Amino acid sequence: MKKSLDAVFYPTSIAIAGASPGKSGQWFLDSIRTAGFMGTIYAVNPKGTEVSGLVAYKSIRDIPGPVDFVICCIPAPAVPQLIKDCATKGVRTISMYTSGFSEIGTEEGRRLEREIVRLAKAANIRIVGPNCLGVYSPKIGLTFASDFPRRVGKVALMGQSGGNTSYLLRASSQRGVRFSKAVSYGNAADINETELLEYFGQDAETEIIAAYIEGVRAGDRFHRVLADVSARKPVLILKGGYTKAGGEIAASHTGSLAGSAEIWDSLMRQTGAIRVCSLEEMVDLLVTFALMPLPKGRNVGVFGAGGGASVLATDELTLCGFKVPRLPEGLVKELMGRFGNTAGMIFKNPIDLSMVGYSEGFYDVVKRLMTYKKGDWFDFGLIHAGFGQAAWFTSSAFDQETAQFRDFVHRIHRETDKPLALVLQFLITNWDWLRALELQRGCSDAGMPVYHSMGSAARAIDRYIAYHEGLKKPVKCA
Amino acid sequence: MKKSLDAVFYPTSIAIAGASPGKSGQWFLDSIRTAGFMGTIYAVNPKGTEVSGLVAYKSIRDIPGPVDFVICCIPAPAVPQLIKDCATKGVRTISMYTSGFSEIGTEEGRRLEREIVRLAKAANIRIVGPNCLGVYSPKIGLTFASDFPRRVGKVALMGQSGGNTSYLLRASSQRGVRFSKAVSYGNAADINETELLEYFGQDAETEIIAAYIEGVRAGDRFHRVLADVSARKPVLILKGGYTKAGGEIAASHTGSLAGSAEIWDSLMRQTGAIRVCSLEEMVDLLVTFALMPLPKGRNVGVFGAGGGASVLATDELTLCGFKVPRLPEGLVKELMGRFGNTAGMIFKNPIDLSMVGYSEGFYDVVKRLMTYKKGDWFDFGLIHAGFGQAAWFTSSAFDQETAQFRDFVHRIHRETDKPLALVLQFLITNWDWLRALELQRGCSDAGMPVYHSMGSAARAIDRYIAYHEGLKKPVKCA
Repeated sequence: MKKSLDAVFYPTSIAIAGASPGKSGQWFLDSIRTAGFMGTIYAVNPKGTEVSGLVAYKSIRDIPGPVDFVICCIPAPAVPQLIKDCATKGVRTISMYTSGFSEIGTEEGRRLEREIVRLAKAANIRIVGPNCLGVYSPKIGLTFASDFPRRVGKVALMGQSGGNTSYLLRASSQRGVRFSKAVSYGNAADINETELLEYFGQDAETEIIAAYIEGVRAGDRFHRVLADVSARKPVLILKGGYTKAGGEIAASHTGSLAGSAEIWDSLMRQTGAIRVCSLEEMVDLLVTFALMPLPKGRNVGVFGAGGGASVLATDELTLCGFKVPRLPEGLVKELMGRFGNTAGMIFKNPIDLSMVGYSEGFYDVVKRLMTYKKGDWFDFGLIHAGFGQAAWFTSSAFDQETAQFRDFVHRIHRETDKPLALVLQFLITNWDWLRALELQRGCSDAGMPVYHSMGSAARAIDRYIAYHEGLKKPVKCA
Repeated sequence: MKKSLDAVFYPTSIAIAGASPGKSGQWFLDSIRTAGFMGTIYAVNPKGTEVSGLVAYKSIRDIPGPVDFVICCIPAPAVPQLIKDCATKGVRTISMYTSGFSEIGTEEGRRLEREIVRLAKAANIRIVGPNCLGVYSPKIGLTFASDFPRRVGKVALMGQSGGNTSYLLRASSQRGVRFSKAVSYGNAADINETELLEYFGQDAETEIIAAYIEGVRAGDRFHRVLADVSARKPVLILKGGYTKAGGEIAASHTGSLAGSAEIWDSLMRQTGAIRVCSLEEMVDLLVTFALMPLPKGRNVGVFGAGGGASVLATDELTLCGFKVPRLPEGLVKELMGRFGNTAGMIFKNPIDLSMVGYSEGFYDVVKRLMTYKKGDWFDFGLIHAGFGQAAWFTSSAFDQETAQFRDFVHRIHRETDKPLALVLQFLITNWDWLRALELQRGCSDAGMPVYHSMGSAARAIDRYIAYHEGLKKPVKCA
């Protein structure tokens, strides 16, 4: 198993079947070339038409060199012949973008899917899909979208939907998460959820596993593997088709048998896997699991501007099981000495620095608090900035201060030995997003977790700590 | 009461005390002038320095004409003298931005607050605040930020935090909500939550009431008024300082006595007010209550591109109590006849139009389904578009199609008699936000509710329907 999946994630030469100008095959071709795939790339189309400046072959068999990986973008009825050609050529893996198999719900679709699996098995070829986007393996520059990151990380992602997998890759990588490998595996006709999970469980490059799963084929085996892998690595699972109605759509989407919510609940409870309720939550959890050093406890220091924001942050953190402990008396006195009992500032915890803004004084105070050594009054820090709250954020001053703020946060992050996260919240206009994403980029690149609301930060960090505490809290979605 | 609050929301002449160049008073002055306040505006500062091109008076008493509304931006110790001057001048309302009263937690702060209330009462002057941003009354161009909308609507908003109130105004108005009036009322030393609620309850221009409240002064009276007003208009309340720790910060923020979570829970349960858990949720609920005609039932038609998005949408809607009923047989046949059993499309419900994109074919299909008359197979429609999911959204084609898509949605919205909402989701990059907000603007202006995730749409519409069904579902935050 391991060997054949190694071949899936580390091919040395790729042919794209159906790489005709203007078709999906060209899109895959361009993506791989843009990503700088380290092996050889061949284009194949029935007329041998040049595509993206590349000579195309009329058949896989016409390719002069060896080919171990084929991306299949030709119509479903032509796939059996392609597999036969691949067998002749010694291909190890076919990643099948082609759809029109079991998911369309016809007898012919199911028959065709059985046939391609049979043909591939006989030739010792592994199929990814069909009806999927295939493989992302940043170590060798293999991808299915040119905007996925090229840097390698420690998260492995398997997703039964191309769109959902793409979103998870894009959204979490924009927030600093990097991947060891990822796969959009569609109908799972050959390589399925259990095999991928087992492989990622053994993979030395993978420390965290994320999955979007619509159906499970061999329930008992999946249960055993999930329990085994979850005992060693966090496995985060978003189940698509959790409800009966959703399961019916999953059947039309990937031909999956979704199983009942009760079975799924008990599976998650028994194996120690981490239940995720939405794609957005998955991104928040990946950011946390991948980037945040584990806080030693649940005491949090909260720093930012805004009295109302400080009140709500305290509520939201408290409701998620955190403590927002009072500032030690020594620090209160120190801050009072510096600023006076200034109207519009709060020196408890949260520290509300409204009158200071995110200036040099902000850096001084937060750094002082994050590095205060007398007693461990908190275990990790949260800096928040609310864009749509303050007129200040819409002033030109903020434009000048964005870079300065980012530098402050970086310096504090480097100079403290406690975990530090950033909440860029209350984002409304495109102006807000432009600046928030600019700040986020700098902080994510430096390895800081960034969130877009206090509530989502609190929930994600709670789940993270609870996982490491071995607490199995019941998770109820919606 | 009504008369004195009418004077708060409809003054005819305003003086800004502390309108010195570069200070907060200038900022209030500029905001009101930019918003086109319909009455007279006077600047006051101790040196009589010209500000924003306006002659300034050294004292309120020096102003030649009548003044009925004063925005107070001078330091706290100088406020008693200002009130005396205002009494001489016949001022009706002082909106007090000045902070440094009960919220700083000192005896002197509390004493000063009591004194200004006593002075104002004696002179028949009403105080908004102190420690607040004051009044937004779009009908007459009174505002505390120049970017709030000038068009009048049916939502009244009262908020005990200037930042939170500003965010709610900005975020919900960007999504099409318009306000009859709003007030940031800070420490509530004089005009408080109960009086405002009663006034909004009687206000013919207000149909929906939203409140961010940190503390309640006269609990019994508030209870009675809330029950009375909630029986006639939806009252949405976000309680800041719901937790004990949050309540302590509320005390430092607005000098509020927050009360216990148990008391608050029972108050909300008994009065029929609508409990809101976060600012973000408040915006989603305001968008829904203000813009969405009440669906006749819980059957929803879901239209968009993306198989995985369709599966998750079905789950999220089902978990919130909606039905995503199968497409009637007649429509399935009609669509099959048009498109064939095309791989990559799903003709159940959700309708997954991946292969059509958001083109003319999309318009045809959605319009056909939204206006299908044989049997009421659904009660309202949701169109979703997932920006970070599909490579298509990052292609230049989408740039050209954005305007077309917006026009399609407008046309469908006009041509159907069923409620229709839009979910612009999976937004990642600034590119995504730029285009999504452009789409949103067009649709919000046309009166369509727009959401940023399927989950938040499902939760908000569920709360809306449940409110009108008279269902009192228990709401648990976090």
